[in-house]
Amino acid sequence: MSSADAAARMLDRSDPAAAIAETAERCRNWGRWGPHDVHGTLNFLTDDVRAAAGRLIRRGRAISLSQSFDTDGPQNGWRRRTNPVHTMLDTGAEAARGTQGFPHGFGGADDVVFMPLQCSTQWDGLGHIFDRGKAWNGRDCAEVVTSAGDQVTGIETLADLVAGRGVLLDVGRAVGTDGELPDGFAITVEHLEATIQAQGQTSSVRRGDLLLVRTGRLARARRNGWGEYAGGPSPGLSFTTADWLHDSEIAAIATDTWGFEVRPNEFDGAFQPLHQIVIPNMGLLVGEMWDLDALGEDCAAQGVYEFWLTAGPLRVTGAVGAPLNPIAVL
Amino acid sequence: MSSADAAARMLDRSDPAAAIAETAERCRNWGRWGPHDVHGTLNFLTDDVRAAAGRLIRRGRAISLSQSFDTDGPQNGWRRRTNPVHTMLDTGAEAARGTQGFPHGFGGADDVVFMPLQCSTQWDGLGHIFDRGKAWNGRDCAEVVTSAGDQVTGIETLADLVAGRGVLLDVGRAVGTDGELPDGFAITVEHLEATIQAQGQTSSVRRGDLLLVRTGRLARARRNGWGEYAGGPSPGLSFTTADWLHDSEIAAIATDTWGFEVRPNEFDGAFQPLHQIVIPNMGLLVGEMWDLDALGEDCAAQGVYEFWLTAGPLRVTGAVGAPLNPIAVL
Amino acid sequence: MSSADAAARMLDRSDPAAAIAETAERCRNWGRWGPHDVHGTLNFLTDDVRAAAGRLIRRGRAISLSQSFDTDGPQNGWRRRTNPVHTMLDTGAEAARGTQGFPHGFGGADDVVFMPLQCSTQWDGLGHIFDRGKAWNGRDCAEVVTSAGDQVTGIETLADLVAGRGVLLDVGRAVGTDGELPDGFAITVEHLEATIQAQGQTSSVRRGDLLLVRTGRLARARRNGWGEYAGGPSPGLSFTTADWLHDSEIAAIATDTWGFEVRPNEFDGAFQPLHQIVIPNMGLLVGEMWDLDALGEDCAAQGVYEFWLTAGPLRVTGAVGAPLNPIAVL
Amino acid sequence: MSSADAAARMLDRSDPAAAIAETAERCRNWGRWGPHDVHGTLNFLTDDVRAAAGRLIRRGRAISLSQSFDTDGPQNGWRRRTNPVHTMLDTGAEAARGTQGFPHGFGGADDVVFMPLQCSTQWDGLGHIFDRGKAWNGRDCAEVVTSAGDQVTGIETLADLVAGRGVLLDVGRAVGTDGELPDGFAITVEHLEATIQAQGQTSSVRRGDLLLVRTGRLARARRNGWGEYAGGPSPGLSFTTADWLHDSEIAAIATDTWGFEVRPNEFDGAFQPLHQIVIPNMGLLVGEMWDLDALGEDCAAQGVYEFWLTAGPLRVTGAVGAPLNPIAVL
Repeated sequence: MSSADAAARMLDRSDPAAAIAETAERCRNWGRWGPHDVHGTLNFLTDDVRAAAGRLIRRGRAISLSQSFDTDGPQNGWRRRTNPVHTMLDTGAEAARGTQGFPHGFGGADDVVFMPLQCSTQWDGLGHIFDRGKAWNGRDCAEVVTSAGDQVTGIETLADLVAGRGVLLDVGRAVGTDGELPDGFAITVEHLEATIQAQGQTSSVRRGDLLLVRTGRLARARRNGWGEYAGGPSPGLSFTTADWLHDSEIAAIATDTWGFEVRPNEFDGAFQPLHQIVIPNMGLLVGEMWDLDALGEDCAAQGVYEFWLTAGPLRVTGAVGAPLNPIAVL
Repeated sequence: MSSADAAARMLDRSDPAAAIAETAERCRNWGRWGPHDVHGTLNFLTDDVRAAAGRLIRRGRAISLSQSFDTDGPQNGWRRRTNPVHTMLDTGAEAARGTQGFPHGFGGADDVVFMPLQCSTQWDGLGHIFDRGKAWNGRDCAEVVTSAGDQVTGIETLADLVAGRGVLLDVGRAVGTDGELPDGFAITVEHLEATIQAQGQTSSVRRGDLLLVRTGRLARARRNGWGEYAGGPSPGLSFTTADWLHDSEIAAIATDTWGFEVRPNEFDGAFQPLHQIVIPNMGLLVGEMWDLDALGEDCAAQGVYEFWLTAGPLRVTGAVGAPLNPIAVL
Repeated sequence: MSSADAAARMLDRSDPAAAIAETAERCRNWGRWGPHDVHGTLNFLTDDVRAAAGRLIRRGRAISLSQSFDTDGPQNGWRRRTNPVHTMLDTGAEAARGTQGFPHGFGGADDVVFMPLQCSTQWDGLGHIFDRGKAWNGRDCAEVVTSAGDQVTGIETLADLVAGRGVLLDVGRAVGTDGELPDGFAITVEHLEATIQAQGQTSSVRRGDLLLVRTGRLARARRNGWGEYAGGPSPGLSFTTADWLHDSEIAAIATDTWGFEVRPNEFDGAFQPLHQIVIPNMGLLVGEMWDLDALGEDCAAQGVYEFWLTAGPLRVTGAVGAPLNPIAVL
Repeated sequence: MSSADAAARMLDRSDPAAAIAETAERCRNWGRWGPHDVHGTLNFLTDDVRAAAGRLIRRGRAISLSQSFDTDGPQNGWRRRTNPVHTMLDTGAEAARGTQGFPHGFGGADDVVFMPLQCSTQWDGLGHIFDRGKAWNGRDCAEVVTSAGDQVTGIETLADLVAGRGVLLDVGRAVGTDGELPDGFAITVEHLEATIQAQGQTSSVRRGDLLLVRTGRLARARRNGWGEYAGGPSPGLSFTTADWLHDSEIAAIATDTWGFEVRPNEFDGAFQPLHQIVIPNMGLLVGEMWDLDALGEDCAAQGVYEFWLTAGPLRVTGAVGAPLNPIAVL
């Protein structure tokens, strides 16, 4: 069956549940790394792979791939997600007035934050999404994620691992207009391969990679306002890329969009069907709302699309997702 | 004047204000990188320095230096600092019951966190501490840090930069007993140099380094309970190391203690006098509550104390400190 | 000078600062209750006044005047105000599974909330608004409200006091169409007096009263969605009611709108000028976002507009505003 | 069977589960107010009862029964409960500097709070405690309280109702030493009746009452520090009072202790067995951490132990408990 035929079959709009079930079956990694596994595809990112990636540090330029965490963000209250609220416990005003109670001219400022863990640049943990009641590795989702958090695959289990070869597929630049894909644009395997082709050999995708896919959606939100960035129409990965993601044996994928996959979703009445494949079935680490614009500029300018990437999640025990500050070094 | 004489003079217990003023004068970097600088000693960490550090990635082993962020932490309410409170917005229970309102067997979990930005493994931003009303580079602290956060040196200004050569001085192991220094132990220049001597040439400290100093205090807290880890007696840097920190031209320093410097402080009636030197005057990035135990084990086993370190703060706009997940790769 | 002339003069659109300064001068109660006063117009609500109000409890019907506190609220992020975020620490799911660690079939649920204190039904404390740097009773606002909260007039100082005679002026019903005033409708003294006239003698306004003014704005938001309820166009008190509010010697006033006074404000380029008069100058307790709809129905049905009202703010130490659940008993 | 015999049988220390099951059976009100009931014993507080209580307002003195909500509170992290953290969004410092962006000398302060709903003076909602998987009225606890909160008996369902006759039984004063009962003191029916006897007829307990029981535990915490106020040893109601509470047909009960019932609990290895009876089985509204000291002083001075009490919970949708500011008027 050709790739196009397979894609057509995968996208029978009338039956998302069947498509999801069949695709899940093909792409499922349950048991691949034993019954106790909590790392999923991060197992592909071995020390050897990581050691080789170290050689990608060349010029020493570091670029943060994090959006800002503040009230000027995309969240609109959906599922009680707000933007981060950062407030001060002490400020320079109190220090200047000398009312802080410290000796010898010492003054200090301190602060707190309240935020949903999925409010901005983040990793989805393996406990974030379930498929018909099952979490990663086939576990009962009700046992895995309770009110006390993820008891098995909490984000802390990944805290050490996420550093290795990053590779950027700037699909917005390669395939889009003025560096951006339109909302509703489904990135297929063909688009991914065309991008690799256009960018050259430094963008070949390999086992254990941390794959970044830039759509240009964030650049558009910056220019035009957040609008429906969170949950509204967006370019993103097509459901039909599931097998490619599986076969590529990448360790993780991240995009500059709210939800990684194309929206509206390709099935009628569906909700994030590709998530349902890749997180609980494949065990793939998925990143969202990353800022890939400065990185895209640098890669295009240098013609080099691979780099050292460190992207450890904030170590919140039991979290099903976590904010982070990913840093690429080129 | 010998180092010991200088130290003695610096520590005239009867006059901390004078000692601080004199030391601040000697160690002050205001204007060194121009009037608009917001990076402080991170200026020493140039792309060249960072590029050279990339070669320290050898075996590809990655170690997170982050403590856990959860309610089992050291905070006790001092200055309204609590431990992080992580709660769930949706869990596997709702997904298993099928009451989340999603189609085709999709289920999800989501979560939020409330936390002081200084609650666990963190960087002090340059707006965290002031000296007699002045913030980094000589600015009026009341203009820099308002209720809306740090308007000038917010932690976001450092988001890209903190990746480079990490070097561990495991003073606890080199100088202490069973790998730990006792509470109240002031680490002097002599102790730092003895540690470098004991550890060998991979622990030489250079311009632009991210210097980690392990005291063993966290290991003790893990064994015995948090007790007064936050704010109580602790080993830490002596006030007398100020000039060494300045002259070494390191980019940043972090320890496994609550407050980086020795406690009780060495002056009578003082409060964190070394902070008052290094943050507002020197512009040094200071990290606290890092977990250096696994790293210390690995370094000792391999006899190698230098490594690649990525330690970008969570990009909270205007924050005067920020949590992070520092990752060493060896 | 007639009331209409006075109003015209007060509303010289070209010079809000002058109008505010003159009105503030006329309506200022600084020193009226001594230099240390923290209660403002609540001084009018004496025990005698309160005792007399007790006789208004007749049928024993109780009506909460509180909106709901949840994410379906009007806040949109303005000045970092979000809607309340309520999350669970434990739920019935864990109790049903028996995983909570309790003996003999005991199970429990627990929860937390994060909310701006001005997010829904609330009192503005006397430290909420300042006039040219002055807080209530003429104090320096920078001394009164610091990062540690209101050091003088925190809402806790009012915690015991707010119980007495409530009187409803249902201006929406008396003057509006279908019970509602349109956005931008400025309620003048004439409208207040016409409402009293229409409602009859139980709505006479007296010294020490807790005055409620219903505009119908909340009913419209309920019907049409929140839209710009928070900060957008709204009916409300005209700036020209300042003297009436002062002369009436009421203890407090509350409305069913976001901001108590008409919006857009009546001066060009102004922001909440009546707040600037009544809070810091008059010391008047102002309530906002109260739900007066069920109360309005009952009052109209019975032809009685006076009742017992208890409206103590949540006792958050140092708060400059506080949520509450006001309860009218008729 | 005499009261003492019954109590002895109820307290067979060797079998708490049996004692709980038998007592629950006797005291269960399931179905008493129909299958859809969400008000429990508040059904006893009818409009007639409330109207009669209005006559208790005599002198017009109002007393808040709320503790302060701030970081100086009893919480210690148990089950992720912290003390409230109140922070400012804007302060007088910014207003004084004129940097808030407002015209004509307008300045403002704003604030937020993060708090467990059980952190200080509060009502337990009917969804707070379960008995062998059952919530109030016999409902499945997993259906009632989910991650989205209490779907049936959320505290908002009680928002209008809690106003009526308050009666104080100052057991600390009547039975204790210097107004206080020692920790571990179990208040039995005999103690309650002796207190009524000592206080006189204004303290008779009637159908529909809001019963307050003062132990003096809070006064001790104020004097000696919080210590183990939250969860540690405390005076409180004996398990043996269950039938008395049931037969009295009170609408609600509140105490000045953390947990209403005596601690350590009277059974070996038990946890809050009286809660397990009164909340899910009886449908009784239980208040904790109320400040009854000023009220106790006034009642003793006047010899009058009944008063008007308004105690509406903060209307947090779906909350299983809620903070409040109860106000007694005498």
